[in-house]
Amino acid sequence: MIQCIGLPLTLILRVRKKEQNLCLQDPFFILENLKAQRMRSNSRSFWLCTILLILLMSATESDVQRRKKVIFFGDSITQAGVQPGGYITMMQDALRVEKQDVNYELIGAGIGGNKIYDLYLRMDEDVIAKNPDIVIIYVGVNDVWHKQSYGTGTDPDKFEKFYTAVIDKLLKRNIRVVLATPACIGERTDFSNQQDGDLNKYSNIIRGFAEKYNLPLVDLRKAFLDYNLNSNPENKESGILTTDRVHLNAAGNKLVAEKMWESIKPL
Amino acid sequence: MIQCIGLPLTLILRVRKKEQNLCLQDPFFILENLKAQRMRSNSRSFWLCTILLILLMSATESDVQRRKKVIFFGDSITQAGVQPGGYITMMQDALRVEKQDVNYELIGAGIGGNKIYDLYLRMDEDVIAKNPDIVIIYVGVNDVWHKQSYGTGTDPDKFEKFYTAVIDKLLKRNIRVVLATPACIGERTDFSNQQDGDLNKYSNIIRGFAEKYNLPLVDLRKAFLDYNLNSNPENKESGILTTDRVHLNAAGNKLVAEKMWESIKPL
Amino acid sequence: MIQCIGLPLTLILRVRKKEQNLCLQDPFFILENLKAQRMRSNSRSFWLCTILLILLMSATESDVQRRKKVIFFGDSITQAGVQPGGYITMMQDALRVEKQDVNYELIGAGIGGNKIYDLYLRMDEDVIAKNPDIVIIYVGVNDVWHKQSYGTGTDPDKFEKFYTAVIDKLLKRNIRVVLATPACIGERTDFSNQQDGDLNKYSNIIRGFAEKYNLPLVDLRKAFLDYNLNSNPENKESGILTTDRVHLNAAGNKLVAEKMWESIKPL
Amino acid sequence: MIQCIGLPLTLILRVRKKEQNLCLQDPFFILENLKAQRMRSNSRSFWLCTILLILLMSATESDVQRRKKVIFFGDSITQAGVQPGGYITMMQDALRVEKQDVNYELIGAGIGGNKIYDLYLRMDEDVIAKNPDIVIIYVGVNDVWHKQSYGTGTDPDKFEKFYTAVIDKLLKRNIRVVLATPACIGERTDFSNQQDGDLNKYSNIIRGFAEKYNLPLVDLRKAFLDYNLNSNPENKESGILTTDRVHLNAAGNKLVAEKMWESIKPL
Repeated sequence: MIQCIGLPLTLILRVRKKEQNLCLQDPFFILENLKAQRMRSNSRSFWLCTILLILLMSATESDVQRRKKVIFFGDSITQAGVQPGGYITMMQDALRVEKQDVNYELIGAGIGGNKIYDLYLRMDEDVIAKNPDIVIIYVGVNDVWHKQSYGTGTDPDKFEKFYTAVIDKLLKRNIRVVLATPACIGERTDFSNQQDGDLNKYSNIIRGFAEKYNLPLVDLRKAFLDYNLNSNPENKESGILTTDRVHLNAAGNKLVAEKMWESIKPL
Repeated sequence: MIQCIGLPLTLILRVRKKEQNLCLQDPFFILENLKAQRMRSNSRSFWLCTILLILLMSATESDVQRRKKVIFFGDSITQAGVQPGGYITMMQDALRVEKQDVNYELIGAGIGGNKIYDLYLRMDEDVIAKNPDIVIIYVGVNDVWHKQSYGTGTDPDKFEKFYTAVIDKLLKRNIRVVLATPACIGERTDFSNQQDGDLNKYSNIIRGFAEKYNLPLVDLRKAFLDYNLNSNPENKESGILTTDRVHLNAAGNKLVAEKMWESIKPL
Repeated sequence: MIQCIGLPLTLILRVRKKEQNLCLQDPFFILENLKAQRMRSNSRSFWLCTILLILLMSATESDVQRRKKVIFFGDSITQAGVQPGGYITMMQDALRVEKQDVNYELIGAGIGGNKIYDLYLRMDEDVIAKNPDIVIIYVGVNDVWHKQSYGTGTDPDKFEKFYTAVIDKLLKRNIRVVLATPACIGERTDFSNQQDGDLNKYSNIIRGFAEKYNLPLVDLRKAFLDYNLNSNPENKESGILTTDRVHLNAAGNKLVAEKMWESIKPL
Repeated sequence: MIQCIGLPLTLILRVRKKEQNLCLQDPFFILENLKAQRMRSNSRSFWLCTILLILLMSATESDVQRRKKVIFFGDSITQAGVQPGGYITMMQDALRVEKQDVNYELIGAGIGGNKIYDLYLRMDEDVIAKNPDIVIIYVGVNDVWHKQSYGTGTDPDKFEKFYTAVIDKLLKRNIRVVLATPACIGERTDFSNQQDGDLNKYSNIIRGFAEKYNLPLVDLRKAFLDYNLNSNPENKESGILTTDRVHLNAAGNKLVAEKMWESIKPL
């Protein structure tokens, strides 16, 4: 950015780079590191130090700018995700505890009943206008569910087309894209939930996109099934990870938060 | 049927009973057996033989009555089952080859688009009026499929009620009842056929009835999945056992014929 | 009921018959009439009076039996009909005011979500077992609505078959049958409510049955449209006769009560 | 465009304007008109006339360029419209007879099963890339129909959003836009066709757009109903204007061709 007498820029950048990698293990790393380096540059004169402070402040400023903006783009599950106990709130709380909240801004952009083409229709306003660094596309339940409940689900081929359009539009703006499969409509583990076939089909489409575009995948459908195979011996329809077969209870929000973070953290 | 000097009726009847059990292993058993017994009974007098002839005639009569009438009660799959190459035609051909067609009358009572309550509505006329010995209830595909294609599928609890009503009405008339699960709507083996969840659910209901009523079960859903797991490595939607995801091709008709017969034979 | 010296039974019975015809115009008619007749029959002997008393007791008995039992057989609209303010409650209140509640027993047999075949399945228990004089069949909304909301509506031809079965079973037991058309799913008057086409179709089926069987028809669909044409100038979806496009508000319950009574009264 | 000695440009433009209004009554109008005006400019010298001829030729050229490209943008009905006997073919034939085919190029851009968002997804490639002068949007049947047949119809609010997006994109490119309402799914005249309510609803949405954007409207839904009220006394489901309740027979294609042309001609 600018050359800085007494603290070579390369060093700052190196530190910053490390910071990104280490940020979750030790949020205090940068300050300590900077102090150490300041020691080494102890012999320099006072005015250089003053400049350094100014530069550091501007660095801090740019640091604020580089705080990663993460948008969770989805339906009612994500809309509930920003409520107390919601999966986004959980991640935010965890970041605060780990003092990582300075590095991440988590934004919920979920609207109840949304299907893939609803996301497409509102992505300019609700996502792109906010200049996110990372967008998690978490949709699919209503594309399947509304077939039965309203007769207005999404044909698989249209699901692919609009999903592709959403991905393309984000990637063109150099936004990091993370995909998530729809977790479940019913928690039975013997594939006897009414929409299991279709949810598997649409999840396969999303998995295919993750592979084709080489994008991180939060395979919630798999995660939920695995969890239920262990924790739902009575083959219940709901109550393990959901309250009503679809929307997340505390355990569900926790599982989604963990799985989401695993994919967002390395970006 | 055959001339028989000095063969006691009780013996014939006993043979006949054995015949039923052994008929498929060796259709020629009876003739051989009867010949052997004729030798042993050679010394009896003429008048006894005359009485015997009369008895035999009545035995033949009761034999005709005891030719088992088997009705396959179902939908379009069963309607096609009586066509050349259909699963019922296949069983009939096999019986003819094995000279068992004198012992069984196979009747197709399938009507395209039928759901469980269609069977219920027409069972008096199409089944009970024909005095069957055995009825195979083979239904369920349309109860699930019509949810999507016409909006007129069958609620699970109504499926249970009408299915129970059909079983009860048959059992009350001492008709042997065999249950069959709906094979498939789509042959993919990864549970990504749209109706897989619902088909599993309704199959579970039928399996439950088989257990509750202690009735033979032709678990076609399981048989088709097992077959496809071996023979459908490309995870195709159709073409392995069906022509169109639902209706049977030659291999499908053969598999259904075999599985059906396994359950009917011991009755 | 009342002491009656020297009033010939035939006369009482004749009065009673008149009473039925006149009851709504003047509920006090009978008492006055009976008094007048008592005067005229003053000179008869004691022993005749004793016989008469016995006969009267049996008449009273038959009178109790002849209190008309009216069953409203339907869905959630009828289930709500017995609540305070419900259409059945309204009729009962009106009968009480007019002192006609001794002549009628109104029974609600409505269950939420019921379609024609639900009525069929529970008619033995919920209707026939109660020995009603009159049954009003008020069904059809869910047969149409569930096509969209659950995929489990009723095919028109099955609607006809089960409806016929219900009518036949009631008529065979000499129960008077009254038919009602499904009022509405949405109150717009320009036929732009989503299910208007289907509701008209199923209402036409019911109208056809009324004609074919020569049964009284409560054409609620027509009554609701006529009412809305006058009272819904803004073409609202609900709020005129319904709270939610389907279930009755106060005005709706009043309209249904009036129309129902018009058909029940003359029976 | 350029000033032309002997034939004032304003005159040419006036003629051209008349031409647009009169073109269908007399396609030879322009030439005759031009000749007449040329007479009036007889006194001018030969070389001026030569320039004029050149200018006229360029005018003719621009005339060729101004041959109006009309795209019919729709579903299977429009896909069939370019077949022999189809409504677009009929218009083309009529133009040829009237020697107007030099002034219009009619293009069918219909794909079976298309809903409004299918039009949206392919409009760049199939419509805008072809630089049309006029686009007729003729869609809606599948948005309604697929609710029942596949569970993938279009919610009314999404129908509005995508329809608006299609209109906006065309108008921004100065393309003349004509709207058409979906004619029918079933020809019964008593509003008892299953989708009548919804078709009316979606037609109302389209009528609203015609008013809001001040666009020509081909109200086929109204035209078909009016026609059937006269010509379908038996209240048949199909066979009057359609072969199968939806797709056009000869009379249907003729009616659509006429109604379409009434709106396109004045543009």
